[in-house]
Amino acid sequence: MPPQPPTCSVEFRARYAETDQMGIIYHANYLPWCEIGRTDLIRRLWRSYADLEARGVLLAVTEATLRYHASAKYDDLIRVVTTLEQVRSRGVVFTYEILRVDGEATKRLATARTELISIDRGGTPVRLPPEVMAAFRGSE
Amino acid sequence: MPPQPPTCSVEFRARYAETDQMGIIYHANYLPWCEIGRTDLIRRLWRSYADLEARGVLLAVTEATLRYHASAKYDDLIRVVTTLEQVRSRGVVFTYEILRVDGEATKRLATARTELISIDRGGTPVRLPPEVMAAFRGSE
Amino acid sequence: MPPQPPTCSVEFRARYAETDQMGIIYHANYLPWCEIGRTDLIRRLWRSYADLEARGVLLAVTEATLRYHASAKYDDLIRVVTTLEQVRSRGVVFTYEILRVDGEATKRLATARTELISIDRGGTPVRLPPEVMAAFRGSE
Amino acid sequence: MPPQPPTCSVEFRARYAETDQMGIIYHANYLPWCEIGRTDLIRRLWRSYADLEARGVLLAVTEATLRYHASAKYDDLIRVVTTLEQVRSRGVVFTYEILRVDGEATKRLATARTELISIDRGGTPVRLPPEVMAAFRGSE
Repeated sequence: MPPQPPTCSVEFRARYAETDQMGIIYHANYLPWCEIGRTDLIRRLWRSYADLEARGVLLAVTEATLRYHASAKYDDLIRVVTTLEQVRSRGVVFTYEILRVDGEATKRLATARTELISIDRGGTPVRLPPEVMAAFRGSE
Repeated sequence: MPPQPPTCSVEFRARYAETDQMGIIYHANYLPWCEIGRTDLIRRLWRSYADLEARGVLLAVTEATLRYHASAKYDDLIRVVTTLEQVRSRGVVFTYEILRVDGEATKRLATARTELISIDRGGTPVRLPPEVMAAFRGSE
Repeated sequence: MPPQPPTCSVEFRARYAETDQMGIIYHANYLPWCEIGRTDLIRRLWRSYADLEARGVLLAVTEATLRYHASAKYDDLIRVVTTLEQVRSRGVVFTYEILRVDGEATKRLATARTELISIDRGGTPVRLPPEVMAAFRGSE
Repeated sequence: MPPQPPTCSVEFRARYAETDQMGIIYHANYLPWCEIGRTDLIRRLWRSYADLEARGVLLAVTEATLRYHASAKYDDLIRVVTTLEQVRSRGVVFTYEILRVDGEATKRLATARTELISIDRGGTPVRLPPEVMAAFRGSE
């Protein structure tokens, strides 16, 4: 039986600043929400992503796909469930499920997927540090 | 020979507010750039998108895909080339090419695609007004 | 002895999306942080600000002042202490202290003040509902 | 007679991404608009602000005041009139008038003022390069 990919769940409220005149959360703001999710997962698997940048390794998004199923509204309690789908020597793939939480019930608002490449400060692709690879894979 | 889908090109400078601590334009900010592109194309084909909303018809993004090829920097001159790929009775598909302009030369930074559905203020899918359909298709 | 004005404290982490290429949180992003603070205080004193908008009463910012003392960084734990300084029939004044939290220690990053006016959906100034006034003042 | 402080005017359209569910431009988004204004004025007086950062001198906002008189809407043609009010050895003060342009007519939407301090990459206050001071003052 294959091991489960590492996953985590984070919750926060949709901000007024994130709405648009359609009366819903502006579609681009789901990408920062995905980032909150993967930031949280990286912290749980290893350490803060800030520590990775302090070592000169940056994770840059090279591809993003978003599917919007229902709209989020101001003050909604949002849950982002993030999964680390793939770990490669020079990059990672995360998927996301974005939900609205109403007490016990949840409603799926969006699903997303991002590919990230590891680069140095100059933008050159570099290998993920072995210790980071191990931490990311250890939970797989 | 099939007619060319309608396309247009708009230019602006990348804002400091759009950068992140990687020293480049934050990846989510390409979605508002796509929106600037399609806003401009809609205005050229028909009228302002604001007029469409004034009639109670909203275009909501249901799917977005972005591929990042090179990074944009603060103060770069950005060109968004937008194409109206498909016109359906209840939605439209746009594609985008995002370029950096350096005098005569250009560099491709990103490509994107968004699907939009036409809805009323309550979120129910509705048909695009015939006059809008005609304007969108008339140029195809 | 004059009663203490109502105050509350909310914490969250600074987002990567909120940084700029100076490597710090972009200065405009403190205004949404203030909004998170007053949203929280309104909820504690009365109900969700969303309920106020549902009644057709909106609070629009008419004046904002920000003083930046030290910079916030990505992933900092931020605390916003919000105080409802004044309640008038057609508006309210909030002040904010924005701090970084490091374990037991805190560092003051910024102070801010916003004046808000109560308007209807058409933008006309209106009185705050008596029940809201009472809730806002009841704690004073 | 005192010389006129240097001023410039820049125009652009309000973006959909900048609206909120009040149906107007979100108040925090006026700060990036001010930044567009001073970026443009710096370029006219000297060179791109990016060149200043390339020399290791950054201009960080230490104080911002905004007064909102009327609301901006999506697709409004916005004009920012920026004035360099003060040039000091370690900082500058800009003021802004933000207008909506309707053909020949204009409507004042907001006024703002920002104080900026010149710092190095480590955050230490530094003197503005003499050549920059001269360019900023030469037009006064």
